[in-house]
Amino acid sequence: MAAFCYRITFPIRCTSNSSSKNDPNKLNLHKININGTSSARPHMIDSLSQTAGVATTSVASVAENITRQNIPTKKQYIDAHRQGLIVEGGVAYRQKIVIRSYEVGPDKTATLESILSLLQETALNHVWLSGLLSNGFGATHGMVRNNLIWVVSKLQLQVDQYPIWGEVVEIDTWVGASGKNGMRRDWLIRSQATGHVFARATSIWVMMNEKTRRLSKMPEEVRAEISPWFIEKQAIKEEVPEKIQKLDDKARYVITNLKPKRSDLDMNQHVNNVKYVRWMLETIPDQFLESHQLSGIILEYRRECGSSDIVQSLCEPDEDGIINSGLKQANEIPLLNGFSLASEIMEGNGLLGSLDKAPLRYTHLLLNKGDSQNEEIVRGKTMWKKKQRIKPFST
Amino acid sequence: MAAFCYRITFPIRCTSNSSSKNDPNKLNLHKININGTSSARPHMIDSLSQTAGVATTSVASVAENITRQNIPTKKQYIDAHRQGLIVEGGVAYRQKIVIRSYEVGPDKTATLESILSLLQETALNHVWLSGLLSNGFGATHGMVRNNLIWVVSKLQLQVDQYPIWGEVVEIDTWVGASGKNGMRRDWLIRSQATGHVFARATSIWVMMNEKTRRLSKMPEEVRAEISPWFIEKQAIKEEVPEKIQKLDDKARYVITNLKPKRSDLDMNQHVNNVKYVRWMLETIPDQFLESHQLSGIILEYRRECGSSDIVQSLCEPDEDGIINSGLKQANEIPLLNGFSLASEIMEGNGLLGSLDKAPLRYTHLLLNKGDSQNEEIVRGKTMWKKKQRIKPFST
Repeated sequence: MAAFCYRITFPIRCTSNSSSKNDPNKLNLHKININGTSSARPHMIDSLSQTAGVATTSVASVAENITRQNIPTKKQYIDAHRQGLIVEGGVAYRQKIVIRSYEVGPDKTATLESILSLLQETALNHVWLSGLLSNGFGATHGMVRNNLIWVVSKLQLQVDQYPIWGEVVEIDTWVGASGKNGMRRDWLIRSQATGHVFARATSIWVMMNEKTRRLSKMPEEVRAEISPWFIEKQAIKEEVPEKIQKLDDKARYVITNLKPKRSDLDMNQHVNNVKYVRWMLETIPDQFLESHQLSGIILEYRRECGSSDIVQSLCEPDEDGIINSGLKQANEIPLLNGFSLASEIMEGNGLLGSLDKAPLRYTHLLLNKGDSQNEEIVRGKTMWKKKQRIKPFST
Repeated sequence: MAAFCYRITFPIRCTSNSSSKNDPNKLNLHKININGTSSARPHMIDSLSQTAGVATTSVASVAENITRQNIPTKKQYIDAHRQGLIVEGGVAYRQKIVIRSYEVGPDKTATLESILSLLQETALNHVWLSGLLSNGFGATHGMVRNNLIWVVSKLQLQVDQYPIWGEVVEIDTWVGASGKNGMRRDWLIRSQATGHVFARATSIWVMMNEKTRRLSKMPEEVRAEISPWFIEKQAIKEEVPEKIQKLDDKARYVITNLKPKRSDLDMNQHVNNVKYVRWMLETIPDQFLESHQLSGIILEYRRECGSSDIVQSLCEPDEDGIINSGLKQANEIPLLNGFSLASEIMEGNGLLGSLDKAPLRYTHLLLNKGDSQNEEIVRGKTMWKKKQRIKPFST
């Protein structure tokens, strides 16, 4: 049976191994030749490897968990518990989700973090229903034979409208080819009531040898397994990929000294990529976030980081996104300690009204602050639009 | 029709109004006479009040949201979208939940935060199905006429076993009387496959006048509305309530300078109580958390805090919970900067093996560090047990 299997989160993610901090073998997707000729040997990027500090479980424990999880061993078409089903001629997955009370933010709309988590969840449930989710770290039989796993290199999300608390949505997800050796996974989030597409997302995955940590070509036997699952449909129309500029410490907003916490770790012992996005958005002034909403995000994953690493979040408003220079001027005071100072200054100057003219695009960079050099973890670009209803404040 | 309606989160929670920091009217549940004779006038504890900085929405917006949320206006017995239904003679609520990939921690079991969030979610969905969820801040008709809302004063959770990723659970929740003027809400979390009770929880709610901020007696008309929903069954057998000692800055573990972030705010513009629990648990050394799991928690809510407040998390191991003094001795070094130092010391001394003899109960306190005096936000007690399988580490 054809199959696809891969890491369902969007690593590159933090691991709990601090010794890898200066490991020259760490993954640098930017430098890696996807045809396998690169000498880069990314380290601990996947969940299949038992990294230092990662718990191992007994065979009995694994067996018990598989029973409790009730993971199917062959393809099924309906998951009644999760309200998921296979659609699109037997290859795509659709799941009904009701937005929960704790998945929304102060404005009662689903948070970006919730949406990213739901993408992860539905991708995983798609694999689950395929019958190939081997204890959560599934791979096709051909991939297992070749010690191959999937790693994500890019994620793009476009949000037209945010679902609100209690709203019923349908999330579709499917996979397709990406070049000769990659895989694309797409998502559509729709209103169940009206069919309106709330959000679209796409991601690019490449294959890596679990042992050598090198990116790999897709072996023929793996291609034969997974290509029947590929469909042409694309959630986001392919355009010339936008180059995300690398920021440096002259960026307008900088938050330093970010440290992953235990509660940021997911079941793969890594800091989840949702945490990365939180760190990115924390650089943006509160006042801006209250009157604007994110309409798009692009993430380019570069390199893993360790949970003991110290992370720096850089952010720069895009000049061409500024309609009027009013806010730009106020923001030109260098803010080395990040958003709290920024928002205080804005409050002090009463600049809320000027947010009509705020920049609508930001470039982001998360850096691992190494002893000798800084390492890029992820580059990002966020796009924003004004909230449709600017809500009055009672102050 | 009989009804109950209340805040579904477990406030007292942070608000975004920093001006209330030294407000003498702030709620102090500990000092308040529940019969309404207290002079305490708690401020901004509820979600019904439009507090400073809280967005107001237009009538059109509210109407549109109600349509999108599809909130029923009369009692229903089945919620097909959420897989919830009314049980126990028409008064309790049961919902099927599949534990999601991002709701579990490094050991693949549901996190405490996820469980607390699911309690909130199912309580709210119970009210939703009752047909009385008025835009998310529902109250019975009698409560609205009397400007009354519910506030929570205590929450207790006992966990026998944590559900794992992908496991199907059923959560039951119902309400009962608590004294003359209070309400109890209980929960049971069961394995759907085996019926095994994973966790039990109970909470106590009292009534407050939204305008005067005073706790209130339950008016007769409200009692007539809600008492038909009350059932006697208790999830946790009532014992003599344990007194939670008040810690001071001589506590063994202290984390200072905790600041709520924007992403900690929920739809009521407050910091959710789940954040409180995270702050509490961050004081406990990582090594302990890796080999132990929380088996119980009691939270006593005392006072709100503002999102601009600076919070201090204090933690003290209970002496009578220490089976052997091995670890106690190592921990007697005062650790004013909290868990990171603690865990370093423990790692340095190679004390992991001594965790067999670690204390199994901790007392907690979150304080709002005021300019002149510190204010209690929440007192807590956590109970722990050794993980059944101590997992080997590959280091």
